Amino acid sequence: MTNQISQMHDEPKKVLVLGGDGFCGWPTSLHLSKRGYEVIIIDNLSRRNIDNELEVESLTPIRPMGERIKAWKEMTGKTIRHLNIDLATDYDRLYQTICDEKPHAMIHFAEQRSAPYSMKSPRHKRYTVNNNMNATHNILCAIADSGLDIHLIHLGTMGVYGYGTAGVKIPEGYLDVEVKTEQGERVEQKILYPTNPGSVYHMTKSQDQLLFQYYNKNDQLRITDLHQGIVWGTNTEETSLDERLINRFDYDGDYGTVLNRFLMQAALDYPITVHGTGGQTRAFIHIQDTVRCIQLAIEHPPAEGDLVMIFNQMTETHRVEDLAKMVKELTGGEIAYVPNPRKESAENELHVKNDLFLSKGLNPITLNKGLLEEVTDVARRYANRADLSKIPARSVWTKEQQAGVPVQIEAVTDQT
Amino acid sequence: MTNQISQMHDEPKKVLVLGGDGFCGWPTSLHLSKRGYEVIIIDNLSRRNIDNELEVESLTPIRPMGERIKAWKEMTGKTIRHLNIDLATDYDRLYQTICDEKPHAMIHFAEQRSAPYSMKSPRHKRYTVNNNMNATHNILCAIADSGLDIHLIHLGTMGVYGYGTAGVKIPEGYLDVEVKTEQGERVEQKILYPTNPGSVYHMTKSQDQLLFQYYNKNDQLRITDLHQGIVWGTNTEETSLDERLINRFDYDGDYGTVLNRFLMQAALDYPITVHGTGGQTRAFIHIQDTVRCIQLAIEHPPAEGDLVMIFNQMTETHRVEDLAKMVKELTGGEIAYVPNPRKESAENELHVKNDLFLSKGLNPITLNKGLLEEVTDVARRYANRADLSKIPARSVWTKEQQAGVPVQIEAVTDQT
Ligand SMILES: NC(=O)c1ccc[n+]([C@@H]2O[C@H](COP(=O)([O-])OP(=O)(O)OC[C@H]3O[C@@H](n4cnc5c(N)ncnc54)[C@H](O)[C@@H]3O)[C@@H](O)[C@H]2O)c1
Ligand SMILES: NC(=O)c1ccc[n+]([C@@H]2O[C@H](COP(=O)([O-])OP(=O)(O)OC[C@H]3O[C@@H](n4cnc5c(N)ncnc54)[C@H](O)[C@@H]3O)[C@@H](O)[C@H]2O)c1
Repeated sequence: MTNQISQMHDEPKKVLVLGGDGFCGWPTSLHLSKRGYEVIIIDNLSRRNIDNELEVESLTPIRPMGERIKAWKEMTGKTIRHLNIDLATDYDRLYQTICDEKPHAMIHFAEQRSAPYSMKSPRHKRYTVNNNMNATHNILCAIADSGLDIHLIHLGTMGVYGYGTAGVKIPEGYLDVEVKTEQGERVEQKILYPTNPGSVYHMTKSQDQLLFQYYNKNDQLRITDLHQGIVWGTNTEETSLDERLINRFDYDGDYGTVLNRFLMQAALDYPITVHGTGGQTRAFIHIQDTVRCIQLAIEHPPAEGDLVMIFNQMTETHRVEDLAKMVKELTGGEIAYVPNPRKESAENELHVKNDLFLSKGLNPITLNKGLLEEVTDVARRYANRADLSKIPARSVWTKEQQAGVPVQIEAVTDQT
Repeated sequence: MTNQISQMHDEPKKVLVLGGDGFCGWPTSLHLSKRGYEVIIIDNLSRRNIDNELEVESLTPIRPMGERIKAWKEMTGKTIRHLNIDLATDYDRLYQTICDEKPHAMIHFAEQRSAPYSMKSPRHKRYTVNNNMNATHNILCAIADSGLDIHLIHLGTMGVYGYGTAGVKIPEGYLDVEVKTEQGERVEQKILYPTNPGSVYHMTKSQDQLLFQYYNKNDQLRITDLHQGIVWGTNTEETSLDERLINRFDYDGDYGTVLNRFLMQAALDYPITVHGTGGQTRAFIHIQDTVRCIQLAIEHPPAEGDLVMIFNQMTETHRVEDLAKMVKELTGGEIAYVPNPRKESAENELHVKNDLFLSKGLNPITLNKGLLEEVTDVARRYANRADLSKIPARSVWTKEQQAGVPVQIEAVTDQT
């Protein structure tokens, strides 16, 4: 993989990073800025506001946007701009920014991305649907309206498929099916891989796919949809340059991913709690590989007239129980098995097709190689900042569960 | 078909008619009220406000809601209540109403339903997505949150399939497909019939399906989704009782359906304008049959634990050109062929499965039998109220069309 943009002699290519203050968006912004892209972040800081609402904080001491950008300038001489625009409501400023800046590509991270948060209450369900649908639609509508040829890259999730579909390998977005006509003939069709979302959050990602399909068909927008696995790890080459550039590490019951929560439990000498049998299989990718994948996606846009390009963005799969064992081995913690707050199969296998990124020369960071660093440089280092009471997951999926759920359950499935 | 509700001796069953001031909702409300149901209409009158925006009016002199309800009381002694609630934004009042009234069923007509309107400008696209997604989601969320066992009946459209799918009969919602596993085995799956929506409006109906699928799965809501053809005709038994009860007749370029616009052109001695070759085939149902179908749907709810029941709600199909000829024959008008403002195939066949409603004994009103009444009792009778300048369709589907579209085109495809 090359770290250069193709036309270094030209003007730097401009990218808008939507949701660039978030866990994936911030390191992506730095990665691209470092490689010569001109980066403009659009983010309404809603994720930080949700931290306020939930009375939690990133384990790592993330700095305000202004300080982050200033530190980056100091360390590298490079300028990143930030616009505080609510993409779900402020269409006019989004549209004006696109027309003024004429970006080469837009990377869309700006959605409410926690499944448990999306299930907390009617207000949270409604916020998730409203925010995610309107943000995605506004972005598509504004690009079409601008008349500019902008490549849109969106982050989806493999979770839309509900995991594990009768031994069928999760393809990269489309499914070839045969249907019978009235005459009994078999006809081949290529369809969007049918989804089976397991939370309101995942449901909005299925709806996003319909929006992409439509704007691609009607307005010929070039779109890449990356169906991402669970992102692990905290820092990248760039966020490690200075503590003021440090990336977010969520460990609370709503936003903490399964692995982060295992790490925290171990660092704090808590039992590592596995939901159900731990037989659920999940796909993973390190944050450093996420940012490299996104650069790859920018450099390989779909051709004019192509369907939405859908890729799986993951590098390895693990059973939840095996993750717990890995963490236990590194830290010497204990494993405890607790009931599962989700409606999902107890066990599943996961077969994922991810040829593309591997074929482009991505040499992934495996859990094997990267996990120890997370334990020492993040979980143990900042353990004193942790609020133990925030680790349990209290969101449940249905009313019946609400009535019966033991409040002390430590939920540690994946959240996104 | 029986016109009685099953338990006449019990309390009258209560239904909420969402969008009950609209073209389908108003006659449905009267039909059900007449048959002993207690009817509460929720409608924010947005459709009348859109008439103001577009500077058009129903050809028929529809009365304000208060007067409609008063006339109904005078004619039948029956009470219908109306609550002005915006379902897309006012969740709390919706939820409170559901908890207070504990309806047996809710019928959801309350969406922006014109494809050309949904394509007029970014503002119209965004309004359609925002209104339709939030209204449908709020309704589902509120039913789930109430914990009540309420049957939700929604009006969808067969238009989501993009019409004419390689000779495959449009099934009632689901498709049996065979997929190959990694081992080369063939596995049978039942999936939501894949959609191919042709406008932002149709796209929201595809998204609705995902919302229904999800809330049915997670919260066991009972849901019937009626994929309706183009509704024709104006009045039903009940709306004919008194002129103050008259139903809406839209003939403008945005909300007028293909047939209504043909009728108006003929009544005003205009040429009947057919888009393209007129080879597009569409499905139709008379408004009187719509209201009977909805009563049938109320009386045959899905069982607990059933998937979303999806039925096609139509009674006959016609090629657009043949419709024009029918109208011509009744009125002596002339046919003119003009370019098509839509992105769609010039010709298509349509094979629709609609066994269920026919099997329940529905004896439909055919165009053959009902069209003359529309000509004499509606189109000619109120022709003097028509604003000729509003008949042309000016919405186009893409920017390129916008540049080139001749403004005098008379667009007469179906709108919903
Ligand atoms: N983190 C993962 O493991 C993971 C896995 C699969 C997919 N994804 C997807 O990747 C994307 C980014 O995830 P993340 O972990 O970085 O999430 P995050 O919550 O850390 O970042 C999202 C950012 O978007 C911003 N945002 C949200 N709504 C906005 C709006 N209306 N206007 C402007 N800004 C808005 C938030 O303030 C936040 O900074 C999400 O779409 C998520 O679904 C993430
Ligand atoms: N008319 C047709 O030929 C046809 C065909 C197929 C499907 N349908 C579907 O049937 C349904 C009803 O169609 P119609 O022709 O009666 O449309 P209509 O526009 O006449 O009626 C819709 C009613 O819903 C109300 N409404 C819209 N948004 C609302 C909101 N947020 N809160 C409260 N009220 C709201 C409007 O004020 C209006 O009175 C629609 O969903 C439409 O897609 C209609």
